[in-house]
Amino acid sequence: MGEFLSLLPPPAALDLFLDAFSASLETETVATEDSLGRISAADIVAPHALPSFSRSTVDGYAVRAKDTHGASEGLPAFLTVVGEVQMGTQAKTPLGIGECAIIHTGGMLPADADAVVMVEQTQQASGNEIEVFKAAATGQNVLKAGEDVETGALILSAGRKIRPAEIGGLMAMGLTEISVTKPPTVGILSSGDEVIPPAQDIGPGQVRDINSYTLRALVEQHGGIANNYPIIPDNPDDFRN
Amino acid sequence: MGEFLSLLPPPAALDLFLDAFSASLETETVATEDSLGRISAADIVAPHALPSFSRSTVDGYAVRAKDTHGASEGLPAFLTVVGEVQMGTQAKTPLGIGECAIIHTGGMLPADADAVVMVEQTQQASGNEIEVFKAAATGQNVLKAGEDVETGALILSAGRKIRPAEIGGLMAMGLTEISVTKPPTVGILSSGDEVIPPAQDIGPGQVRDINSYTLRALVEQHGGIANNYPIIPDNPDDFRN
Repeated sequence: MGEFLSLLPPPAALDLFLDAFSASLETETVATEDSLGRISAADIVAPHALPSFSRSTVDGYAVRAKDTHGASEGLPAFLTVVGEVQMGTQAKTPLGIGECAIIHTGGMLPADADAVVMVEQTQQASGNEIEVFKAAATGQNVLKAGEDVETGALILSAGRKIRPAEIGGLMAMGLTEISVTKPPTVGILSSGDEVIPPAQDIGPGQVRDINSYTLRALVEQHGGIANNYPIIPDNPDDFRN
Repeated sequence: MGEFLSLLPPPAALDLFLDAFSASLETETVATEDSLGRISAADIVAPHALPSFSRSTVDGYAVRAKDTHGASEGLPAFLTVVGEVQMGTQAKTPLGIGECAIIHTGGMLPADADAVVMVEQTQQASGNEIEVFKAAATGQNVLKAGEDVETGALILSAGRKIRPAEIGGLMAMGLTEISVTKPPTVGILSSGDEVIPPAQDIGPGQVRDINSYTLRALVEQHGGIANNYPIIPDNPDDFRN
């Protein structure tokens, strides 16, 4: 005649289980581009500001905002185009009074420019002159240096799972390597006299081993390494071995 | 003097982009256990019921419910224990009137048993007899054959991403292989005179290539294969090549 099991309450079982682990995982350095799904091992701070220079957020003209004050459809401001900011370079000359420069989205503001007028709010006048139909406020259509991230700001805490956005953020800072925890190895062991491998035909009273494979996938999904062991019968000695 | 770009409205650009793709992906068969994150290529129906037999959901005694009717603390029902259902096997004999069998969680109900009494609601009496303190309703503590899934039921639609739960569900059905779509290959190409590789020191007006790496990670996260190309300058001929 069989016996019924004596069981531990779940919190006691969990304590017993967790006590068997060492407290910390080893770390290793990997290429940021290969770090998807890994776990950051240390806090990371910004080595420089982002953006590292003031950029235009539109296509238009870099201006000194005060040169456009009072401009309207009826009474446009006239500005002289003194050049074009080439993408990926510094503007060659600072803007003088009444001057502007063609600028593209992402372009670096010339010295003394403090706003950008959208091309839609301008019109070509004679020669090198444009008409501006709307006054620009200081900082308008400009992403200022450091507006996204300031130097020294925490950009990634330790213990965070690396997603595509984190990879992009690290790359923006030139951080092409990252310290991550080594993936933990998880041994998975199904037990039960009624449990059979999934490929096997099912007999009366038998169930297929679902948990081994579900748990393996969960472990891999969360960045661990799964080690599956064979199914163990309901026998304490087999289990211990 | 530079030009401003003429742009397509987003829906028109998307149409142009999507028109360039062929309509369907090729499929391949993979081991279910290796299918995490893949996309199912066809509807899958249950080849058999789950569970494939009526099972106990508790540790206790398989009974004929009507033998316990009227049982209470003051006036228990007396039943004769005629055996124990071994896990993973069919109970050897059907239950007669006034008979019960020891059963464990997940065990297969003997023929003619239609309920399970929890061990906590019983007490050992003399010899092979037990006292049952509470009447059992038909079906009590029993997971009936087909209660989870009936034969022929749709268990996975085409076009679904395989998660750990799907792997477990397929394994429960003995489906150790699955037809999935071949991962699409996505070419990724950053363009812009201001864009530099992330490892490079940033100069005035320059930004690091973030999008290539973020998109690569997104493609991989969604089961695609990413092909990164070098950064292209702002020049239509370079772009076409």
